[in-house]
Amino acid sequence: MRTQVAIIGGGPSGLLLSQLLHLKGIETVVLERRSRDYVLGRIRAGVLEQGMVDLLREAQVAGRMDREGLVHHGFDIAYDGRLHHVDLDGLTGGKTVMIYGQTEVTQDLYAARDAMGGIVIHEAENVALHDVKSDAPFVTYEKDGETHRIDCEFIAGCDGFHGVSRKSIPEDVLREFELVYPFGWLGLLADVPPISDELIYANHERGFALCSMRSKTRSRYYLQCSLAERVEEWPDDRFWEELRLRLPESALPGLTTGPSIEKSIAPLRSFVAEPMRYGRLFLAGDAAHIVPPTGAKGLNLAASDIHYLSAGLIGYYRAGDQQGLTDYSRKALARVWKAERFSWAMTNLLHAFPEKGAFGDRIQRAELDYLFSSRAATTSLAENYVGLEY
Amino acid sequence: MRTQVAIIGGGPSGLLLSQLLHLKGIETVVLERRSRDYVLGRIRAGVLEQGMVDLLREAQVAGRMDREGLVHHGFDIAYDGRLHHVDLDGLTGGKTVMIYGQTEVTQDLYAARDAMGGIVIHEAENVALHDVKSDAPFVTYEKDGETHRIDCEFIAGCDGFHGVSRKSIPEDVLREFELVYPFGWLGLLADVPPISDELIYANHERGFALCSMRSKTRSRYYLQCSLAERVEEWPDDRFWEELRLRLPESALPGLTTGPSIEKSIAPLRSFVAEPMRYGRLFLAGDAAHIVPPTGAKGLNLAASDIHYLSAGLIGYYRAGDQQGLTDYSRKALARVWKAERFSWAMTNLLHAFPEKGAFGDRIQRAELDYLFSSRAATTSLAENYVGLEY
Repeated sequence: MRTQVAIIGGGPSGLLLSQLLHLKGIETVVLERRSRDYVLGRIRAGVLEQGMVDLLREAQVAGRMDREGLVHHGFDIAYDGRLHHVDLDGLTGGKTVMIYGQTEVTQDLYAARDAMGGIVIHEAENVALHDVKSDAPFVTYEKDGETHRIDCEFIAGCDGFHGVSRKSIPEDVLREFELVYPFGWLGLLADVPPISDELIYANHERGFALCSMRSKTRSRYYLQCSLAERVEEWPDDRFWEELRLRLPESALPGLTTGPSIEKSIAPLRSFVAEPMRYGRLFLAGDAAHIVPPTGAKGLNLAASDIHYLSAGLIGYYRAGDQQGLTDYSRKALARVWKAERFSWAMTNLLHAFPEKGAFGDRIQRAELDYLFSSRAATTSLAENYVGLEY
Repeated sequence: MRTQVAIIGGGPSGLLLSQLLHLKGIETVVLERRSRDYVLGRIRAGVLEQGMVDLLREAQVAGRMDREGLVHHGFDIAYDGRLHHVDLDGLTGGKTVMIYGQTEVTQDLYAARDAMGGIVIHEAENVALHDVKSDAPFVTYEKDGETHRIDCEFIAGCDGFHGVSRKSIPEDVLREFELVYPFGWLGLLADVPPISDELIYANHERGFALCSMRSKTRSRYYLQCSLAERVEEWPDDRFWEELRLRLPESALPGLTTGPSIEKSIAPLRSFVAEPMRYGRLFLAGDAAHIVPPTGAKGLNLAASDIHYLSAGLIGYYRAGDQQGLTDYSRKALARVWKAERFSWAMTNLLHAFPEKGAFGDRIQRAELDYLFSSRAATTSLAENYVGLEY
């Protein structure tokens, strides 16, 4: 098989790239190691920046999001027994975020790809990238016991942190930066109405908590937990009880509990690989970088990568202009590092870090006290939260 | 001897308190362990916040400062080979800082105390505080081989980090918070014109540098250095050579070198003691807290302590109102911790921290890149630099 752009990974990054390129007449093939059901079963983020919302509209996959998604004009930080409101809209001159689950985004992208006859090959095993430094790269994979080959002009590595794409870049070219946090997030999904109309990020001496949502009837709650803990140690009752302890009294009347439909523990990690281009291979999303989930930047960063990468490829195919591709790694990384900084800072601001000692604890309290006393500081938080300019 | 307020320490905090109280008819005695010449020989900070400037005017000791001090409307951060200007004036709605050395402030305070017949006892040895939890505290000290006693109503502990005042608070009452940084500042004072009209804070992979000044003919330069280094290893030529390496090319033409008149290495420390009151003893300035010098908050924090403490004592003596004294520790500490946070953050932003690894280095670069790209972030820096509201 031959195509123009081989896309490794059928998650939101790969599908969005495929869709944006297709709309400009550029051919793609998407290879995904898992089944479609598996991909759609993954519970992930649900807060979309304005830039990502605009990109989904540009990709003509925003109809259901615009009907069903919840526009949030702010969020709350719970600290010292009180809720402190962050007015995103007012502080950023009208910017907001959209609550719409990554699973829904992916489903809408699959529907669009299907409708346009996009090629997405699932359960493609042992994917390997070849000759990526040449002008004629190709990809091989196995499916149903046979080996297949796709000749292409470019390869987009959208296959996540554990994917083959980043690993195809030689070690002496790739530089990796990493920070692992000494705790995880225990997440619980339940079909109950959210505690509040907006998200609540809670700083508490027992540990961080987050009250998030996917819709008006589906809530997503998180608790900072030790990495030594196991989901089995957290029956629903214990989860709800601990959540109550970490929230201000004034928020509790809004809390509706119910049986979990998913519960899992995820570690928190900051990771960046540089550069994001090697020959004709371009990395995007989790393949190149991971943020801790505080501030919900992971999916949004994938979208900004796809914005830069699709623009570069479209420039190349439509006008023979290589500049966008030449600039891709530099431009994407500049934004990636700012989002890494924000996610790291928001993680530091809100979690309990006993290992930082009493001085660290007081500095965190001073940061929160200063934040709520300064319009400049709150504006800085807000402009990062809604997403920096592409 | 009997007085109303015994003040331990004849540095700027103690003298300023003495002066402010005297103007309201409250009696004080200042005890200082060193000679006046020794106190005036110490080279310290030289950037005064608006709030401290106002307080010195209120204390009627601002005449020479207003004539000779340099009003600075901004400063520069050198990063990545360029100077980035921080427009304090424009970002804070007209606030500025005053360049005027701590030595000059102290000299002006001594002159004012002399003129008003204020009692300042120098070379008072073995100062001890007694019965500070009672209504009748007293202070003893030795001078010229004799022991003296001062009965008083309140004691102000303005005797610095190593002074006796903080040590007079029982260990089970006092809580101390501390962070020691893995480097020091090598400072050089020279009678040469400053490199620039304003201060330059330089972030460089070889280490932080600061181009500061005391006047238009006296410059103060600093280099981040290892704590293992000794001043003897830094002849002037080596200092100037290293400074050049850490500054952008574009700044170098302004650099005038010359023989040092003082050179020393100081460690960097963050320290806070809580509470700042114990019975009739009130701590102020370095006796209660130390900041790393990045951002020049040390002397300014002492001034804000004295603002709160003098107001409390004046309220008590003039109106019998105890509220200001009751609130002193809480109010002073709220501002102290915000300044500790800022000094810690600015130290982290600008110094080389090899121990934080490659990820930490990239985060620092991202912080600087974000800072210079965001008006909200620069405003936050500026409002802290000129000093938060009292």
